[in-house]
Amino acid sequence: MSTPDALDPATKAAATSGSDTWHTTAVPGTLRRLTLADGPHGLRKQSEGGDNLGIGDSVPATCFPPAVGLGATWNPDLVRRVGAALGTEANALGVDVLLGPGMNIKRSPLGGRNFEYVSEDPHVTERVAAALVDGIQSQGVGACVKHFAANNQETDRMRVSADVDDRTLREIYLRAFEHVVRTADPAMVMCAYNRINGVHASQDPWLLTTLLRDEWGFDGAVVSDWGAVVDRVAAVRAGLDLEMPPSHTDRLVTEAVQRGELDESVLDTVVDRLRRLQERVSSDTSRPAEHDSHDALAREAAGEAVVLLRNEGGTLPLDPGRSVALIGEFARTPRFQGGGSSHVVPTTVRNALDALTEAVPGGVTFAPGFTLDGRPDSGLVDEAVAAAAANDTAVLFLGLPEAAESEGFDRSGIGLPHDQLALLDRVREVTDRVVVVLSNGGVVSVNEWQHQADAVLEGWLLGQAGGAALADVLTGAVSPSGRLTETIPLRLSDHGSHLAFPGEYGHCVYGEGVFVGYRYFDTLDRPVAYPFGHGLTYTSFAYADAEAKPDGADGWRVAFTVTNTGGYTAAEAAQLYVEVQQDHPTRPRRELTDFAKVTLAPGESTRLELAAGARDLSTWDPLNQRWSLSEGTYTLAVGASCRDLRLRVDVTSEGDRFAPALTARSTIGEWRGHPVGGPVLDELRDQLPPEFREVPEEMLAMADSMPLETLATLSGALSGQDIARLVAETESRRRAAIDRGEITGS
Amino acid sequence: MSTPDALDPATKAAATSGSDTWHTTAVPGTLRRLTLADGPHGLRKQSEGGDNLGIGDSVPATCFPPAVGLGATWNPDLVRRVGAALGTEANALGVDVLLGPGMNIKRSPLGGRNFEYVSEDPHVTERVAAALVDGIQSQGVGACVKHFAANNQETDRMRVSADVDDRTLREIYLRAFEHVVRTADPAMVMCAYNRINGVHASQDPWLLTTLLRDEWGFDGAVVSDWGAVVDRVAAVRAGLDLEMPPSHTDRLVTEAVQRGELDESVLDTVVDRLRRLQERVSSDTSRPAEHDSHDALAREAAGEAVVLLRNEGGTLPLDPGRSVALIGEFARTPRFQGGGSSHVVPTTVRNALDALTEAVPGGVTFAPGFTLDGRPDSGLVDEAVAAAAANDTAVLFLGLPEAAESEGFDRSGIGLPHDQLALLDRVREVTDRVVVVLSNGGVVSVNEWQHQADAVLEGWLLGQAGGAALADVLTGAVSPSGRLTETIPLRLSDHGSHLAFPGEYGHCVYGEGVFVGYRYFDTLDRPVAYPFGHGLTYTSFAYADAEAKPDGADGWRVAFTVTNTGGYTAAEAAQLYVEVQQDHPTRPRRELTDFAKVTLAPGESTRLELAAGARDLSTWDPLNQRWSLSEGTYTLAVGASCRDLRLRVDVTSEGDRFAPALTARSTIGEWRGHPVGGPVLDELRDQLPPEFREVPEEMLAMADSMPLETLATLSGALSGQDIARLVAETESRRRAAIDRGEITGS
Repeated sequence: MSTPDALDPATKAAATSGSDTWHTTAVPGTLRRLTLADGPHGLRKQSEGGDNLGIGDSVPATCFPPAVGLGATWNPDLVRRVGAALGTEANALGVDVLLGPGMNIKRSPLGGRNFEYVSEDPHVTERVAAALVDGIQSQGVGACVKHFAANNQETDRMRVSADVDDRTLREIYLRAFEHVVRTADPAMVMCAYNRINGVHASQDPWLLTTLLRDEWGFDGAVVSDWGAVVDRVAAVRAGLDLEMPPSHTDRLVTEAVQRGELDESVLDTVVDRLRRLQERVSSDTSRPAEHDSHDALAREAAGEAVVLLRNEGGTLPLDPGRSVALIGEFARTPRFQGGGSSHVVPTTVRNALDALTEAVPGGVTFAPGFTLDGRPDSGLVDEAVAAAAANDTAVLFLGLPEAAESEGFDRSGIGLPHDQLALLDRVREVTDRVVVVLSNGGVVSVNEWQHQADAVLEGWLLGQAGGAALADVLTGAVSPSGRLTETIPLRLSDHGSHLAFPGEYGHCVYGEGVFVGYRYFDTLDRPVAYPFGHGLTYTSFAYADAEAKPDGADGWRVAFTVTNTGGYTAAEAAQLYVEVQQDHPTRPRRELTDFAKVTLAPGESTRLELAAGARDLSTWDPLNQRWSLSEGTYTLAVGASCRDLRLRVDVTSEGDRFAPALTARSTIGEWRGHPVGGPVLDELRDQLPPEFREVPEEMLAMADSMPLETLATLSGALSGQDIARLVAETESRRRAAIDRGEITGS
Repeated sequence: MSTPDALDPATKAAATSGSDTWHTTAVPGTLRRLTLADGPHGLRKQSEGGDNLGIGDSVPATCFPPAVGLGATWNPDLVRRVGAALGTEANALGVDVLLGPGMNIKRSPLGGRNFEYVSEDPHVTERVAAALVDGIQSQGVGACVKHFAANNQETDRMRVSADVDDRTLREIYLRAFEHVVRTADPAMVMCAYNRINGVHASQDPWLLTTLLRDEWGFDGAVVSDWGAVVDRVAAVRAGLDLEMPPSHTDRLVTEAVQRGELDESVLDTVVDRLRRLQERVSSDTSRPAEHDSHDALAREAAGEAVVLLRNEGGTLPLDPGRSVALIGEFARTPRFQGGGSSHVVPTTVRNALDALTEAVPGGVTFAPGFTLDGRPDSGLVDEAVAAAAANDTAVLFLGLPEAAESEGFDRSGIGLPHDQLALLDRVREVTDRVVVVLSNGGVVSVNEWQHQADAVLEGWLLGQAGGAALADVLTGAVSPSGRLTETIPLRLSDHGSHLAFPGEYGHCVYGEGVFVGYRYFDTLDRPVAYPFGHGLTYTSFAYADAEAKPDGADGWRVAFTVTNTGGYTAAEAAQLYVEVQQDHPTRPRRELTDFAKVTLAPGESTRLELAAGARDLSTWDPLNQRWSLSEGTYTLAVGASCRDLRLRVDVTSEGDRFAPALTARSTIGEWRGHPVGGPVLDELRDQLPPEFREVPEEMLAMADSMPLETLATLSGALSGQDIARLVAETESRRRAAIDRGEITGS
């Protein structure tokens, strides 16, 4: 194999873009042609002769639940098995790198691609995405995490600048990427379409090199989202290895090298990275795709993704002896995935109608009730109402039609279609037992109608076996164990991002900062329909005996006992949050730090341990570019949702004792509160004129926000030289205190 | 008089800073020494031998209501008379420029200096501030509007960067400054301490020159807030004329000229401006201060500033025959102004105790009830409760102690002190008629206690005659006519700025954007305690017969009839709002465009006309740096508060028909919706490959957010040359359409 520097610039430049929409460019003797394919919950290997845009037909593959469903399982072990199955199918189809998982944060319920993302919370996102990467890569296939970064909307997605402050980026939008890169070692990262603070992700040297590679240690390859490159040379210089699909502008790269505008070593580095990539990924087409067992796995995953939102009077599971009116076209024609690049041609599709007909001894009468295109049909409504009246229980499959959500555009609201709600009203009039089953990729509001339903199952998009899985849950063959990975608000406008989404004029100001999802609702103590983490089961769980113990440097573990106190074997997703209380909140009231899903038989107990690491207690300090751990009390709260916390343990932290260097621009308040600067200031006090020495309380409050040099100018108390001496003396003492280990500092 | 260029650089440099804390530097033969003095609601001419910090004792002057009170009058004519009185007093004291009015927007109820500012709304702010400038300058004295700009908090005020998008700056934080500069011609502008998007206001060439002078036409002088200069040379270069107080770094300016880093012509321009300034301002110490008539004016202004929030069962005005228990130390020791640079030594102080004792025939029993320093005193409570039990009506003077609000720090909450609320509870138990009178500079919450009060008067800070004015209103000598210039929220955390105020790490992200105050509450339809514009009177007003007619280019006037339908002569502040309805709000639900205060006798009617100009219907387009008027329907709503709108008229606007130039980076959606680009694209459609011609609906939705060149790359449908031709052809047709007057464009 030749070394990169033996290649001419044009050959190396050619390697920095694909040979076609789905393949890298081969360099004989150096690089072989790799095959990339969507998508994150099922292979979308395009058929021969597909369209150039790459959204057309693909060969059949198992359609697992999209990320919205996988996330709702709160079960990384299960997700890992799904990832392994995806890897197997990739192998069978000759795919070297699978373009997934998607792991952007659901900033607004309107995000058009939310169904491809895991959660509004970075911790759930990172756990689920890391498991999927693990699973995919366990089969020798590469995973490609996407879309890096802050790609939280579809509106104007190829130009919009996510204007987001550094702390919010670090704590919310980058955190899951960081975790997955550091722990799961994905083969590739896909940069996003959008700009971040004005710079296109595809050509942002800070994002693609300083942060991703230098700080996080990523050593894989970065590929552009399809069509994300704007300035080809700037992208290569910033750290983009592969432009997809090729824009046929490789000559611009070559010319930049020839003109000395791009260092040729940058191309050598790209070729190196692509060579490392091909060494670690290789599809093995000799292995079979195991479609049958994958369908069973898809059913299992879907079953764990279903969230039981409401279950008045134990309406669910269905009483086997009672007859069922099964209403809603979705029961026959399931909505199980979203549109766009992740759209899979499934190997088979199971609907709930067939599964329930088989599973309900009391009998099932089906009535579609409505059409999927929203066309009014009073005959269908009458038929459904008659069916409801004639049976013991009405089970309504409601949801969003396919056209409502897709990659490429954001939603315009979160309501269910009006015709479906009208149908629910009519059905409710003739029966006293109503179950609603929802199919939707993005959150739908429930507040305006859920009083009409005795039980509500949130079925998200569940993949090809979703219908069967919903039947499993409805009949009680499976006790629901899914949990909300995103808050269901009372109203769309309650969301912290509402007025700032999706922005305008090419900019979206992330005005809510770190207060995304439950971080906003909980900090402001605002009511919600269902909180983050919520999900009922067919049994009940008790929590007891919490105990916190230190874990590593500044971290904690909380042990506690969970007991199944009800009558069903079921799984609980126990959650640990760290809580802080601040009068003027600058950090969320509580944040998830860990969770564990455990299945228990009736009466069974288990002891669990969940972690809150130093990072979980810290916030990002943008001034000093570091994670900052404050001294103080932190509450570790354990429970079944962010608003159903059963046990609390307070722990105290010494903090990191970080003391920054003080300058003439540091305020009097900063000087006074500084472990080194405070005493220095005190010593100097006596040398100052009276009006500086004996400052009344109200003046002191004013002075606290003044930089030292400003107060000196205003008061005439200190000269510039005095201040320089003060600063130097303080810095010298600070260095000594750092050396003695009394404080930390940079 | 010598010309500036006859002066040497050092002499000119010396003129760019003061000679001391309150005087400019004289240049013999060119510039005389000018005297500047705080403050906006009363002269604070420092006594000889005062402290260098400039916050110490000053000579007595009439203390008019601070801006919070003047704003609440909604009466620019009255404010103009107050301004003239201030000008007279400035003359008498030899003050050439009065440092006021303050006109920053009240972004958060916590803003420590809110009492010095007018409103959460730019329109009320600009009307009141312009009137004050007019009045001051009518006496030959200069006014200095401050703090330019975006100085909306005290926390870290000398360093914090207000990180605020261009549209929000223009529509909210700059708008009142623009209006006052354009219409009232203030002699000076004071730049703020803070940074705006990272740049110190004192050295921001865009702010001080491009915007203020080149765009708005300001030809006065810019002075620094006291101590606001960080980089002396950068400040001069940016357009700062005068550093105050002097930091004794003139040599840095001189050296910069000598080194060629600062063009000497910049100094000539400064000297020119200072010369123009001295030509237009001149104090005339021969004129008397008229303290008696000013005290009467202060009482009149205070009387119009009082806002009657609540008046159950006509509790107010007080029945003259009923005895009054007057409770609360504030009735004897009024809180009538805030701390900091605006603090005036009054010529006299009238308290409510004396005024009510004189005015209530039924008799007044006073009990202080609590101490101003918050020290518990159960004896005082018992005495107050006994007084309440022994009299017909209890009038409680509650409020914030002096230490709670001042320049220099922000408040930490909006609650009244607990001891005062406990007193209210105790009093309520023994009497069935309770009136609460509030004294506070920033908003206080009322929701937790107002059910205990039959009537609530919001007395703000009312200046030296406030006690007498409150007695006037309580007894009915004056019917209250003040209106809220800021929303009283149910909870502090309901405010749109809550989580983003006051920021951290030297930055404050204005995340709520244009949704400040009622713009936030009304757009999200969130409940409030009392809405912006609210204020009861002792009478009632009816609104009728609204009619809209065009007024100038794209503007409107609404005429309507207001009738006093009650039994008291009183003033109504009629308000006009423009309303828009958007599914995904990018602009406020409604915004105040005009108001008029009119006094009517019982049964009297008048026809009023209020204006909504083209600017009021427009929003700022940051991409094209222009005010943008959209085609569509606007509702003009007239009423007594933003939530008490009585009449509505819909008007339609053609908009400005602005069509920007299209580029390869314009999206397909922008091309399709463009009056010129759309037809061009249609014509080209037939030449394109089939997958581009016959795009299914879902693909079209995806394509709409794709830049033309990206879609071309992805589809292979158009070459770079094709696109360049398309763009050029479209631009040529657009130019022609502009020339024909069919569209507008730049």
